[in-house]
Amino acid sequence: MSAYLDNSATTRVSAAAVDKAVAMMTVEFGNPSSLHTMGHHAAQAVTAARRQVATLFGLPQDAASLSCITFTSGGTEANNLALFGAAAARGRRGRHMVTTAIEHPSVLEVMHTLEKEGFSLTVVEPDANGDISAGALADACREDTVLVAAMLVNNELGTVLPLREAIQKIRRRSPLAHIHCDAVQAAGKLPLKVLALDADSVSVSGHKLHAPKGVGALYVKRGVRILPRVYGGGQERQLRSGTEAVPLIAAFGAAVEALPPFSEQYAVFHALEAQLEEGLSAIDGVVLHRPQNRVPYIVNASVCGFKSETLVHFLASREVYVSSGSACAKGQQSHVLQALGLPKEQSDSALRISLCADNTADDIDQFLAALREATASLASVD
Amino acid sequence: MSAYLDNSATTRVSAAAVDKAVAMMTVEFGNPSSLHTMGHHAAQAVTAARRQVATLFGLPQDAASLSCITFTSGGTEANNLALFGAAAARGRRGRHMVTTAIEHPSVLEVMHTLEKEGFSLTVVEPDANGDISAGALADACREDTVLVAAMLVNNELGTVLPLREAIQKIRRRSPLAHIHCDAVQAAGKLPLKVLALDADSVSVSGHKLHAPKGVGALYVKRGVRILPRVYGGGQERQLRSGTEAVPLIAAFGAAVEALPPFSEQYAVFHALEAQLEEGLSAIDGVVLHRPQNRVPYIVNASVCGFKSETLVHFLASREVYVSSGSACAKGQQSHVLQALGLPKEQSDSALRISLCADNTADDIDQFLAALREATASLASVD
Repeated sequence: MSAYLDNSATTRVSAAAVDKAVAMMTVEFGNPSSLHTMGHHAAQAVTAARRQVATLFGLPQDAASLSCITFTSGGTEANNLALFGAAAARGRRGRHMVTTAIEHPSVLEVMHTLEKEGFSLTVVEPDANGDISAGALADACREDTVLVAAMLVNNELGTVLPLREAIQKIRRRSPLAHIHCDAVQAAGKLPLKVLALDADSVSVSGHKLHAPKGVGALYVKRGVRILPRVYGGGQERQLRSGTEAVPLIAAFGAAVEALPPFSEQYAVFHALEAQLEEGLSAIDGVVLHRPQNRVPYIVNASVCGFKSETLVHFLASREVYVSSGSACAKGQQSHVLQALGLPKEQSDSALRISLCADNTADDIDQFLAALREATASLASVD
Repeated sequence: MSAYLDNSATTRVSAAAVDKAVAMMTVEFGNPSSLHTMGHHAAQAVTAARRQVATLFGLPQDAASLSCITFTSGGTEANNLALFGAAAARGRRGRHMVTTAIEHPSVLEVMHTLEKEGFSLTVVEPDANGDISAGALADACREDTVLVAAMLVNNELGTVLPLREAIQKIRRRSPLAHIHCDAVQAAGKLPLKVLALDADSVSVSGHKLHAPKGVGALYVKRGVRILPRVYGGGQERQLRSGTEAVPLIAAFGAAVEALPPFSEQYAVFHALEAQLEEGLSAIDGVVLHRPQNRVPYIVNASVCGFKSETLVHFLASREVYVSSGSACAKGQQSHVLQALGLPKEQSDSALRISLCADNTADDIDQFLAALREATASLASVD
């Protein structure tokens, strides 16, 4: 039996989502822009999925709300579209941007690219636990701030940023700001309420919540203008051209619909988190990295004396799959753990265990047993 | 029985491609950037698909050739990446661009966006048949031309552009030019030989050749530099960030491998084209639009006296699926037929019949019977 505990990297596609994708590949395979019945059926499937994905954002399913959702090829494209699109729309009114040191590369790299184009950037650092306060975010904002990007849940530490409070403060300080929220690690596992959050845009990714890789969505608040990044046939209300990836989009909708209620998910998460914390604390040399505000489905711990990569490979040989930092920084030192100011010994030996509602106590037992075996049998670095 | 004759809009996904997509969604669902075995298996699937897609471009399967191929979310993104990416890389050396009036919107709209950014554009018109000569393309190029975009096969008329000859001429005239070829309607149905073609970049789309919607690829010649459009985790050799859409990419590879040999495809295409031409010519008021250089798998004809949209709906009610112009210009007048200077009566009544190798003589019979029924029973516009 294998124990897949790397759900913040990617997830297994749910049966409902697979079935939907297959149907759209083989039966209803029309092009949504075709005028005939097959095109119409494909377009209907996209609309149905947009309704399902609207619920992910906590939106009602009326036409006006649905028009706030743009399907993309994933979270990275959604972040790029929001940030480049907002910078292009607002760049003449101000040139200052704010983000945090613990954002995903698809935010940080866009911000750095915009810096090269003449924008200036303030990066907010986390405290030693990995938390960032609403005040710290707001204090970095100025009157000429036109772009703010902050994640709701950090992908390596599980930090929850107090964005609702932060956005209220930023609105008072920075009336020109487009405020973007990367909700990739939150969507499906936290109840998003984008209207109450009051962000200008919010990005999500399908493959983090049991949809296939290659699809994501961007919510853009009504009345907020961003410029497209991809031009062509004018699909997605001119904001994202290209034949709609109907099998993926429909599967995304089905995956959202198949998600267990939050109460069920959290019963699993809290139990497994407690089991993990207890088991890890009992292993010599393990240091848990726990922000004050955090989700229970991401646990980060250093196993001092062992290199992350060595541990990941050893665990995989026991069919236990976890991560060293994020999957997106293959082989590189984690910029998130660096931002915490961890001693090198700890950042070099960090493991991320990330859960989904399908995980069981047996998975955690298997992980802990394999980790104990690793620390007993592998040569320590020192 | 239905007759799907809209294969230039999109195709049914082949069984081999569906099977591969399902396996990558349910069994090998790892993130290619993950360090563990599941990540490694996903990365291997992407590499295997890159080898298969290399053959689509007529490339050998060595590492250097494979590094010329970037997976995208489709043909539109591939065209956008090539054109914006080349303009960003070369825009300081010259500001002139050349394209044709019969390009796909994902080329034309990018060119018009670049015009707004200060580039100047020369648009080459087709002759009355829909042909564009190598000389006409080359004559539009200048010493300061930095970007040329031309399609290999037109999506509405089936025109084949003499790009190999044109590119040789353009190279002599425009040493700074990045020459991009949109091969979306050619790939899988014409033997692409990108090295002999000598284009700087060539785009293809999966869903035109029995892969799922949501995946495409861009070939960029070795040593040619273009800038990315999507920034993040640095996937696809930094050129296109974002978690790889493994199920789609693997399915794309499988679809390429499952394509019948060209000889088999052309035996079908030539027979069905002849059957179509004969049948259509026998119907009163039908005018065939036939470029001199054309592929046999796209046939465009006007059924004078009847509106395209009405015909498309009538045919669909008989389970026959064809197109009025391209699927990407839903409900709009075709810019391609306008460029031919057709009388309005003809452009308003055009149908596009587009084939794949799975089509049969029965499909064509069913189409012709339904069309005869339409012209007999529908009220003529006049």
